[in-house]
Amino acid sequence: MAVIIPGLRLGLTTVRWLKSQAASTLAVNGRRFAAYEQIRLIHVARDKSNPANGTVPRRLPFSIVSQQDLDFFKQLLPGRTITDPDLLESSNVDWLKSVKGSSEVLLRPKSTEEVSQILRYCNERRLAVNPQGGNTGLVGGSVPVFDEIILSTALMNQVLAFDHVSGILTCQAGCVLENLSNYLEERDFIMPLDLGAKGSCHIGGNVATNAGGLRLLRYGSLRGTVLGLEAVLADGKVLNCLSTLRKDNTGYDLKQLFIGSEGTLGVITAVSILCPRKPQAVNVAFLGCSSFQQLLETFQCCRGMLGEILSAFEFLDSACMGLLEKHLKLANPITDSPFYILIETAGSNAAHDEEKLHNFLETVMMSSLVTDGTVATEESKIKALWAMRERVTEALTHDGYNYKYDISLPVEKIYQMVTDMRKHLGDKAKNVVGYGHVGDGNLHLNITSPTKDPALLAAIEPYVYEWTAACRGSISAEHGLGLKKKNYIYFSKPPEAVALMGNIKSMLDPRGILNPYKTLPDNLR
Amino acid sequence: MAVIIPGLRLGLTTVRWLKSQAASTLAVNGRRFAAYEQIRLIHVARDKSNPANGTVPRRLPFSIVSQQDLDFFKQLLPGRTITDPDLLESSNVDWLKSVKGSSEVLLRPKSTEEVSQILRYCNERRLAVNPQGGNTGLVGGSVPVFDEIILSTALMNQVLAFDHVSGILTCQAGCVLENLSNYLEERDFIMPLDLGAKGSCHIGGNVATNAGGLRLLRYGSLRGTVLGLEAVLADGKVLNCLSTLRKDNTGYDLKQLFIGSEGTLGVITAVSILCPRKPQAVNVAFLGCSSFQQLLETFQCCRGMLGEILSAFEFLDSACMGLLEKHLKLANPITDSPFYILIETAGSNAAHDEEKLHNFLETVMMSSLVTDGTVATEESKIKALWAMRERVTEALTHDGYNYKYDISLPVEKIYQMVTDMRKHLGDKAKNVVGYGHVGDGNLHLNITSPTKDPALLAAIEPYVYEWTAACRGSISAEHGLGLKKKNYIYFSKPPEAVALMGNIKSMLDPRGILNPYKTLPDNLR
Repeated sequence: MAVIIPGLRLGLTTVRWLKSQAASTLAVNGRRFAAYEQIRLIHVARDKSNPANGTVPRRLPFSIVSQQDLDFFKQLLPGRTITDPDLLESSNVDWLKSVKGSSEVLLRPKSTEEVSQILRYCNERRLAVNPQGGNTGLVGGSVPVFDEIILSTALMNQVLAFDHVSGILTCQAGCVLENLSNYLEERDFIMPLDLGAKGSCHIGGNVATNAGGLRLLRYGSLRGTVLGLEAVLADGKVLNCLSTLRKDNTGYDLKQLFIGSEGTLGVITAVSILCPRKPQAVNVAFLGCSSFQQLLETFQCCRGMLGEILSAFEFLDSACMGLLEKHLKLANPITDSPFYILIETAGSNAAHDEEKLHNFLETVMMSSLVTDGTVATEESKIKALWAMRERVTEALTHDGYNYKYDISLPVEKIYQMVTDMRKHLGDKAKNVVGYGHVGDGNLHLNITSPTKDPALLAAIEPYVYEWTAACRGSISAEHGLGLKKKNYIYFSKPPEAVALMGNIKSMLDPRGILNPYKTLPDNLR
Repeated sequence: MAVIIPGLRLGLTTVRWLKSQAASTLAVNGRRFAAYEQIRLIHVARDKSNPANGTVPRRLPFSIVSQQDLDFFKQLLPGRTITDPDLLESSNVDWLKSVKGSSEVLLRPKSTEEVSQILRYCNERRLAVNPQGGNTGLVGGSVPVFDEIILSTALMNQVLAFDHVSGILTCQAGCVLENLSNYLEERDFIMPLDLGAKGSCHIGGNVATNAGGLRLLRYGSLRGTVLGLEAVLADGKVLNCLSTLRKDNTGYDLKQLFIGSEGTLGVITAVSILCPRKPQAVNVAFLGCSSFQQLLETFQCCRGMLGEILSAFEFLDSACMGLLEKHLKLANPITDSPFYILIETAGSNAAHDEEKLHNFLETVMMSSLVTDGTVATEESKIKALWAMRERVTEALTHDGYNYKYDISLPVEKIYQMVTDMRKHLGDKAKNVVGYGHVGDGNLHLNITSPTKDPALLAAIEPYVYEWTAACRGSISAEHGLGLKKKNYIYFSKPPEAVALMGNIKSMLDPRGILNPYKTLPDNLR
């Protein structure tokens, strides 16, 4: 059952009123639901300096799914209109189990035409829709907040074309990233992006959230590698921008609107993407550094000496290593160090790459920038080293309640934030850890506590956002804003820009049915 | 004096009426102006299958610059409000001398604040504005069509910041590309783009037109390398998206709207751009092939063997070589061949790069894919080889009247278009030549005739666009649409997409003052 709060003017009184509503909802609907609801209340009401302060998410006056609506969907998608609460369970809750909606309908279209018919109908009926890919997002963007209809791309999983000359892949939005990677690998190509969630995430979701990941340093962002896309607009109109050309300057590049808009402007149904050749040689080095300054110097040296073959420069701190050892029983492959670096090279000539890597390692070991290290060239060992970086997120989930931040900063400042946060929180936190993509200036700051702790959250936010804004950083490097971060947008974007985003939303989705409560701050409504 | 035609409903009668207006203008304003005017009439009225057929550019009902307006501008920009017709001459006509406006005011702001004040004033007064960078565009996008005020970025030429750790350059929009290249070279970095027009073009114009150029194959498009920009909107509002972060997923990526919108949505005043390290080693090979099929096979082989160090794969045909020899007295550095390839490598290790290049050349010579070739490693010789590719445009201007097409196609089809066009035109054309960026699937098709020839144009268009559309190509790969190609947009974009572009234009520039008559087709008005 959904919490339905009629559209009210918001103010302090209203906020208090809504809080008591949530509390009474607790009694009616059981403990778990209310707990999720409270997280949301806390999240948006927390930050005093936020222009959106005082607004809490309330259910907007969308229609409620009726029996007649269900009849329509069942006729359109026989056997693919899911209403069984047990089957809906996993689609209503996010991967972190931090946000839970109460949708009663999950639709599983197979074609663009079906998506178009669904949206046309929902727009006319003013039914809210939550587009959902692999549901691996970390900011509550991929699940319903109230009773939005879940529109899953899971059955839109066909590769439509692959051109082995140009390396351009065209596929439906619901293809799982890892399946696409395997498909391409057999054809001697790779996907230009790779993420820890590759086994579940959908390419449509990757594009809709402008996912970054582990190969951005080398192959650039999806804004460059996505050559075309097809999206269905809120009114059901199909926008075919599914070009397969590297260059196309005929008018405004509309596809960019949908990349990174988190399903709020349209539902991506297909994409075409430029895929690099599979490298002939891959090497991974796992190194230890005694300070972050030495890590930075190693990065500078690495860019010069590995140049065009450098494909990843990742880091984790000793606290992350501790969690990997403790919770996942992974063994540290080198001696204990304050910082660890994972470097990957990918190139066309194994001998050249090995020589470059050897020269680089010799230089950084001789100059004591790096204190210990190991190198892998065979696939299983490469995977084992990558696990040290990729499984940090998983290790964290075993460490208690997680407060996750995904920050872009000038690269020389990324660890200062972790140090400052540790000092700032003192013994309020269980662990404060930092890892991420040094090559992209992207820090994943994670804070754990035994259980959810409002006092800890109050110490973290808005401190973390103020710190970021003071360095002209971004409060969301690659995770997006979703439900959890949308009201903090003003820490990274000026009001004129946010207002323009609101105008774009109104233009493309005048009834606001697409992924409501996400990405844009509440004060725009 | 400007041609002023009041806003009229368009139809066949109107078209005829406008044509006779243009003819009478001829008598008043002299031969040259009328000739330019006629080109415009022909260009837009030509294509029978174009949905915008029947519309011709007419002066929209903007205000006319009054003495009071001039007084305002002179007070705002003392000594930088140009009204002397001799000084305005070069800003009124494009580089190809194919489009000429009749603007009577050229404004040269130095700061974003001045641009903001100009636009706020023009928007209130409903005065049309033509933003102008280096005026090197090839589609008539950079000059006024009627009496639009020319807003030049020439004095906005300051580097604002350069971060030598990240390689991120922030500068005003009017910086000349070559000056930026020189600035960076001294700091061991390079610009991620390079064009033949680098000595004149402005970075703001490059970004506004999403310029492609010679390094796109390696460093990707400006959609990936431009990290931030500042733009002034039609109403004078300053939109500060001048981020210097590699990753930033906080809301919609507004800067993408301005990249490639040809000054129709806002005036770009500053950009930040990610610059690659200067390569340690550069090599250029100039090769001959006996067929285009062999050229394609050489390309495939090259991508495999040169991999990550390949930075350009360009081609020209023997007709281009003939023009270079005849008009510019450049000597062919190798034996005559039907096709010529220019390959550039850029890498971090000279010995490795030379070995890769040597292995590749041995393979393609042994297998007879390539019939002759020469390699340059020193800078002067590299420049001489690049001149064979870069100066084709210049050679063409000496060959008569030029009909220029800039087409994206699946790479295997790019030369078929030249062959088909030659057959199609027979002896109607003087020369039909093809050159361009094989690595990007981008053909520059050029057709020359002794003088302007309406019958020849009628034979070329819409044939060239229909041919492109049949291959799902783009009728403008990197040049943009400007004035000349805007009505052909439907050959590459579906009507829903074009309509959405119109909505975006209306949202950002409701009075339509920014670069009117450009990019969007006439039928959207």
